[in-house]
Amino acid sequence: MVKDKILAFFLGRRLEDTELSEEKFNVLWGIPIFASDAISSVSYAGEEILLVLMPVLAMASFRVFLPIVAAIICLLGILVFCYRQTIEAYPEGGGAYIVASDNLGEKIGLIAGGSLIMDYILTVAVSSCAGAAAITSAFPSLLPYKALLAFAIICLLTWGNLRGIRDSSVMFGVPTYLFILTMLSMLVTGLVKYSLGLVTPAQEAVVAANTAELATDAMVILVLKAFASGCTALTGVEAVSNGVPNFKAPAPQHAKKVLLAMAGFVCIIFFGVSLLISLYKIVPSEDATTVSLLAAAVFGKNSAMFYVVQVMTVVILSLAANTAFADLPLLMSLIAGHGYLPKQLVNRGSRLNFSNGILFLFAMASALVFIFRGSQHLLLPLYASGVFISFFLNQFGMFTHWRKRKGPRWKLKAAINGFGSVLTGTVLIIIVVMKFMRGAWVALLLILSFILIMLRIKKHYEKVSAELTVSSVEDARREINRDKAARVIIPVQSLNKSFIKTLNCALSCGFTSMELYSVCSTEEQALKIREQVKALGVDCEFRYDVTTLRNTNDILLAHIRQEADALESQRLIVMMGGLVVTSPFAKILHNSTTHRLMRKMETYRNVYVFSVPYVIE
Amino acid sequence: MVKDKILAFFLGRRLEDTELSEEKFNVLWGIPIFASDAISSVSYAGEEILLVLMPVLAMASFRVFLPIVAAIICLLGILVFCYRQTIEAYPEGGGAYIVASDNLGEKIGLIAGGSLIMDYILTVAVSSCAGAAAITSAFPSLLPYKALLAFAIICLLTWGNLRGIRDSSVMFGVPTYLFILTMLSMLVTGLVKYSLGLVTPAQEAVVAANTAELATDAMVILVLKAFASGCTALTGVEAVSNGVPNFKAPAPQHAKKVLLAMAGFVCIIFFGVSLLISLYKIVPSEDATTVSLLAAAVFGKNSAMFYVVQVMTVVILSLAANTAFADLPLLMSLIAGHGYLPKQLVNRGSRLNFSNGILFLFAMASALVFIFRGSQHLLLPLYASGVFISFFLNQFGMFTHWRKRKGPRWKLKAAINGFGSVLTGTVLIIIVVMKFMRGAWVALLLILSFILIMLRIKKHYEKVSAELTVSSVEDARREINRDKAARVIIPVQSLNKSFIKTLNCALSCGFTSMELYSVCSTEEQALKIREQVKALGVDCEFRYDVTTLRNTNDILLAHIRQEADALESQRLIVMMGGLVVTSPFAKILHNSTTHRLMRKMETYRNVYVFSVPYVIE
Repeated sequence: MVKDKILAFFLGRRLEDTELSEEKFNVLWGIPIFASDAISSVSYAGEEILLVLMPVLAMASFRVFLPIVAAIICLLGILVFCYRQTIEAYPEGGGAYIVASDNLGEKIGLIAGGSLIMDYILTVAVSSCAGAAAITSAFPSLLPYKALLAFAIICLLTWGNLRGIRDSSVMFGVPTYLFILTMLSMLVTGLVKYSLGLVTPAQEAVVAANTAELATDAMVILVLKAFASGCTALTGVEAVSNGVPNFKAPAPQHAKKVLLAMAGFVCIIFFGVSLLISLYKIVPSEDATTVSLLAAAVFGKNSAMFYVVQVMTVVILSLAANTAFADLPLLMSLIAGHGYLPKQLVNRGSRLNFSNGILFLFAMASALVFIFRGSQHLLLPLYASGVFISFFLNQFGMFTHWRKRKGPRWKLKAAINGFGSVLTGTVLIIIVVMKFMRGAWVALLLILSFILIMLRIKKHYEKVSAELTVSSVEDARREINRDKAARVIIPVQSLNKSFIKTLNCALSCGFTSMELYSVCSTEEQALKIREQVKALGVDCEFRYDVTTLRNTNDILLAHIRQEADALESQRLIVMMGGLVVTSPFAKILHNSTTHRLMRKMETYRNVYVFSVPYVIE
Repeated sequence: MVKDKILAFFLGRRLEDTELSEEKFNVLWGIPIFASDAISSVSYAGEEILLVLMPVLAMASFRVFLPIVAAIICLLGILVFCYRQTIEAYPEGGGAYIVASDNLGEKIGLIAGGSLIMDYILTVAVSSCAGAAAITSAFPSLLPYKALLAFAIICLLTWGNLRGIRDSSVMFGVPTYLFILTMLSMLVTGLVKYSLGLVTPAQEAVVAANTAELATDAMVILVLKAFASGCTALTGVEAVSNGVPNFKAPAPQHAKKVLLAMAGFVCIIFFGVSLLISLYKIVPSEDATTVSLLAAAVFGKNSAMFYVVQVMTVVILSLAANTAFADLPLLMSLIAGHGYLPKQLVNRGSRLNFSNGILFLFAMASALVFIFRGSQHLLLPLYASGVFISFFLNQFGMFTHWRKRKGPRWKLKAAINGFGSVLTGTVLIIIVVMKFMRGAWVALLLILSFILIMLRIKKHYEKVSAELTVSSVEDARREINRDKAARVIIPVQSLNKSFIKTLNCALSCGFTSMELYSVCSTEEQALKIREQVKALGVDCEFRYDVTTLRNTNDILLAHIRQEADALESQRLIVMMGGLVVTSPFAKILHNSTTHRLMRKMETYRNVYVFSVPYVIE
């Protein structure tokens, strides 16, 4: 079909089940897919810390800046250590959802699931906004269109991911390494220039330095706030452990290597960039990102390398968003498998992707980008709170896991994850308290609503299953009814193909007493249909009613009820032709009158309704 | 049901058909519903003119400001005169869509339909943004949340309109008159203060006046640009003629009175406010609306009356948005009646409203508000172009109407509408040329896409009708097939109620050869089902296949095909239980596997498919 060809042109050819195993990552291609999220946070985490410190401490900020960065990097080291245990224990993919529902119960698992879904949405929203910020830093005239730029990035990624998994790793792999190279060359150039004394601070006209010392408790709160903001550097650490089954065998070994490589890169680049920011005394600005100001200071505002840094930042942030596109559909299919999300999400679409999940991610992230006007500063507090909820649940779940399952050296393992859960729990509290008014409440509200929706979905499936279940074979046997139907009624509106088919179906059953029934708007119309029916030469009765109002359906129902009552305990069969359209577009265009009628007729004790589908492609 | 009660609580009780005639407007209540759109444009039209003039002419702007306003008011007078003829000729509602499709053909009618749909969406988007601007003018700290404020206004209106028509007029009627009173009192106070010499211009520190005279052609373009911006004052004039059937009998007379009253109010308030702006030398600002600056100058920044003006402005703009909520569903039901929009839009929902249309309007307007970051300045160029397309098509359609139908004094009538079409056509060209890059292109693109969607919908309905039609009774007779079916297959997955019902239906047909067929994942499962079926004591064969892959459906289809082929030319009936859920929420949760299977089976020559619906509320 033409439609299939067009889809194939845009999305690539359809893949078969057997091709599934080819679509997996080794370490080299796994790094860009899974580590880009964490690495890319370099482009905003430092800036978020400075944005908290600057209004209070001004140039004195740089004295506390590096220690905060160091603390965050320590936290990263511990997290990596803790997550290696998760990967080992859950080679089938140990995201917070699995670990929490496995060890802490389904309800707690749902909290993890809800926060992970939100994390992925925010990964896409934040990364695309930060990417747009990198673009507007290079081209300030685009500033008014920041939200649209972010949206364009999301569109591009959606398209890429609908095309398929392996294409993604090839399309996105090389640029990650280029980003790492670019950043390393900026570090080297910057340090060399600094040591040669060639540095002219990017902005001389800075805010008047606040020389007065802050009271200790005010200082503590300020540092905690800055630390909470900087923790956005750790987003993306959990991606690897969620996506273990996406690696080539032996998956856990590959995943652990990727996790380690990722931590190394983040550590070097985040600390290096922060060090340079500190040395060059870069003051964050409204119109340009801190990294872009640093690049301008190191390479010069109009140098080619300045633009390279901006381009590579956009690319790495796009990769970060891509992490979510690779992982969220996997997570959603897991949750859907447990009955908490629509069953369709369990299935892989064409090109072996979970296209439903991809489209959901596209819609949600785009909405957030427009609602928060393309500002990563506004979105980051939401992001950090969600991420640390899942960190904490993962670690606490692993702690419980070791305590319950024991196994070799379980005490040491439990101690490690116990320490991890205390640490992530503490950071979570810091973030929620420090960022509650700045957006953490929105995050908590969104997670809560995801959980409620998931519970409602589960409830619906359980209700359906309860309604369908028969308690025993004996009960089922008692409900069997062997009586032949006494009469068949076929409603007819006009002599069309759907009606002819319904009539043929009725004839193939060999019913003895058949009635065609029509509700017409004029007597003439009724007589015309009667003539046509007579001309068909089928042995059946024709009856009709006339109405000028729009209560056609009520009259039809009243007639069926009357006939059913007249038959007393004997069966009446109503055979209705039903139009079935297949495309979602067409489904919008046909209302469900037939279904509504069937539902009403179902309530009449001795009526059976048969629908004869007439399919239109 | 509880759900009905909850809906009734929020939406009011359900209305019956017979209550329809009560829900109509007389002149007094018709004015707020239909004229508020036009009257409310006072709150932004003047500002738009000044925003064009100020950057070039600075304080000299006020010399050309009033003449431009006067020209726009003249245009309004002519339009009202032209539209009275439309109301008279089309008492059943003569929007541009009807007039154009009646007189200029269906295709041109679609252009009018598309631009009207966009006009209504933009009425809601622009009015809610302008309303939000009035709020932020009074409370500048809310400026960052302007888009959210606009969204809140849209939500409120959607809710109000889902409740029903008459509630709307009562809820919204009184405030319009209060707005008119507020504006009149501002005019009187302002003029008295000015004549007493008590005026201190709102902003002394203005841009340096550009004293150099502009070249004549540059001046012409500037004035045309300002004129094009000011034409937004005329939006809403067509609302009355679209909504004639919403008036009490005699509808045309009532409608004409409302149109005249509306023009009078717009004329007095728009000219009065512009005069005051001119006298008080109000310079437009980024953070506050011109009307709010004027109110501050007349009444004082912290006076109660300043806040009254802001509140009443928000209210009248909400009413303007309400116009669209009252009219768009009516228009969409007309277009849907011609087959260009989904058929469901023809029907009135509960509370006699076209709830589908209301929800569509809600979604589109909210999207525009977020995409254009809550700025009415960005949205207005789109609005003006759409409105003048429908003005032009209405007038040109009426011109053709008189020339074709003749009737008494047709030459005079044709001349009036001919003049109207030349005038509106000219203004349309001015707007499109002057505002093309500022957003008119977006408007044209949107209208084009609406038209394409409508054409596609029509094409779909035509295709369906073509597929269903039988060319003659003889053809139909030839397609009748009296053979009794040789065999019935009922697929079974587990012994649930839906299966029992399907089985009963098959028994009621009295088939002689019945087969139950199951695709199982293990041999044990198959044997268990076989036992259960045997226990039911029904005379039928049981067959099964086992698969461990997820190709269950393919195996089922292959089996059906094989059985069908074995029967050669005899009929095979497949009876399938189909789950029918009724709420839209539940529909998302059930995929359409059954329908997909039916579609495939349909293609086998000698197979009939019966669906036995099992309804779950």
